[in-house]
Amino acid sequence: MPMNKQWLLASRPRGAPSVDNFRLVESPVPAIGPGEVLVRNHYMSLDPYMRMRMDDAKSYAAPQPLDEVMQGGTVGEVVASNNPAFAIGDKVVGRLGWQLFARSDGTGLGKVDATRVPLSAYLGAVGMPGVTAWWGVNGIIEPKAGETVVVSAASGAVGAVAGQLAKFRGCRVVGVAGGPRKCEAVVEEFGFDACVDYKAGNLAGDLAAATPEGIDGYFENVGGAVLDAVLARVNAFARIAVCGLIASYSGAPIPVNNFRSVLVNRLKIQGFIISEHPDIWPKALAELGELVAGGRIRYRETVAQGIESAPEAFIGLLQGRNFGKQLVKLV
Amino acid sequence: MPMNKQWLLASRPRGAPSVDNFRLVESPVPAIGPGEVLVRNHYMSLDPYMRMRMDDAKSYAAPQPLDEVMQGGTVGEVVASNNPAFAIGDKVVGRLGWQLFARSDGTGLGKVDATRVPLSAYLGAVGMPGVTAWWGVNGIIEPKAGETVVVSAASGAVGAVAGQLAKFRGCRVVGVAGGPRKCEAVVEEFGFDACVDYKAGNLAGDLAAATPEGIDGYFENVGGAVLDAVLARVNAFARIAVCGLIASYSGAPIPVNNFRSVLVNRLKIQGFIISEHPDIWPKALAELGELVAGGRIRYRETVAQGIESAPEAFIGLLQGRNFGKQLVKLV
Repeated sequence: MPMNKQWLLASRPRGAPSVDNFRLVESPVPAIGPGEVLVRNHYMSLDPYMRMRMDDAKSYAAPQPLDEVMQGGTVGEVVASNNPAFAIGDKVVGRLGWQLFARSDGTGLGKVDATRVPLSAYLGAVGMPGVTAWWGVNGIIEPKAGETVVVSAASGAVGAVAGQLAKFRGCRVVGVAGGPRKCEAVVEEFGFDACVDYKAGNLAGDLAAATPEGIDGYFENVGGAVLDAVLARVNAFARIAVCGLIASYSGAPIPVNNFRSVLVNRLKIQGFIISEHPDIWPKALAELGELVAGGRIRYRETVAQGIESAPEAFIGLLQGRNFGKQLVKLV
Repeated sequence: MPMNKQWLLASRPRGAPSVDNFRLVESPVPAIGPGEVLVRNHYMSLDPYMRMRMDDAKSYAAPQPLDEVMQGGTVGEVVASNNPAFAIGDKVVGRLGWQLFARSDGTGLGKVDATRVPLSAYLGAVGMPGVTAWWGVNGIIEPKAGETVVVSAASGAVGAVAGQLAKFRGCRVVGVAGGPRKCEAVVEEFGFDACVDYKAGNLAGDLAAATPEGIDGYFENVGGAVLDAVLARVNAFARIAVCGLIASYSGAPIPVNNFRSVLVNRLKIQGFIISEHPDIWPKALAELGELVAGGRIRYRETVAQGIESAPEAFIGLLQGRNFGKQLVKLV
């Protein structure tokens, strides 16, 4: 029997995390009890929200406990089962954390069809990030045909899907991403109408040029300078879905200078956490599954190899070094 | 026949307005044509939003034109009429501007009953400020019994009514106001549960002490430090109605530092302009009229005497020197 490997949170970061904040431990693969299954994880999901949970601060979820396995989404395969709902060989999505093997009583574990959609997509466009995009666009921004929607972190796991969903609603969709390579993919692969490179040094001017009729909806993943630039361009009654503020996860809060726009333009700004909307998941996943299977939604993945690579890959994600969904491949 | 007096906007302020930005002119009282009425204004309303309109900047309303009569709400009496809908002696509310007399074809002019409710109240608790409070509380914050609602500028024309409406919904209501005299009235006269004096030098601590169970709703009239202090105290799913940001009307934008709270606490922030919700005015005014007539809503007024006093009174309003609704008495 192979050994299990697990990443624990060793210490809480001050500012940007480092690999020292994590500790890799080995232990025997656990035996399963009555009603339990053993899952071998194939992919781990790395997501920006994990940074917030590393802090011991008031937030929407309990902090990641110290000296416990890092929590996170996974897809894998059932390799042993005492649970009649799961057979050996079943592909499952769940939140089994940063480890090679995990025991589960089946709670929160979902069987998925990896024949029409790649298994890894259940951590991306047909998983939590996709549903996040779906709700931000369809539940909060609710754009009408002809409106302009801006999406930050547009090449990312959430942003790429958000923009494509807004395109299906007949909008002009403008991405914001870092660097010409990402911006090119946002337009050429994902079909956005334009993409602004926030690293090019002319954010306000480039955003204005890309949104000649102003901005009616904004899918916010970043915060900071991008948010201020958008607030300066919004039209009356614009809607801003605040999904992430990655620019401020590891440092001091970044002030918002153009808050007055909320009043002047009668904005609606709404923060959300997709796990709090369980009612919409089945509908969103069904739609996203069809769209991905049919090739109508495209996405990118950055795949780190082996569980040892997880901390470095996570740090890179927070710095925007990934391109699309950041995964760790375990098998 | 007496002469008319009118205040025109002479120049646009840079920063805080001064009396030099206004010009008083005299002219004959206008003759009325077919279908028209002549109204003698009894009270003029002074409101913070007027400061925004003095700028030639993109905003929700067209700027106040230079060299034209300052726009604003008024109550008065019909003193001549060629319009069968209005008789001499009718009391009317409208937007006839900073002047003693005004000609009107009746558009936007409403007859009011000054026997149950004082005429001046139609510019305050039973007028635009009252409806603003009503919609912010009932349409945006929608507080449930037992929740905590904070109201800034709590002794003002809007804030005092907003807090009393939230009390009717069974909330703990905490005001924020400037100075012990206003804070005392907010609690003793208006029935708030507590009031924080933002000038006392301990805003964060005092607000925390007054909101032991956090904040579920915030009626925002001010912005700046008060908004940041509230963002640091909000509970999950809190609602913020942005009615005004008076702290930043005359100067540089004041950065918001705690925007991350929007995500962490899944806030809804909504800016609104009450003139854009005409459908709710009749219901709101009917309710407010009953509440004021029955003595269940209380309010304060600061009344400047004579049209000559209007610019000074307006400048004082922007500095918080008023106490309750700022009016100019003309008759």
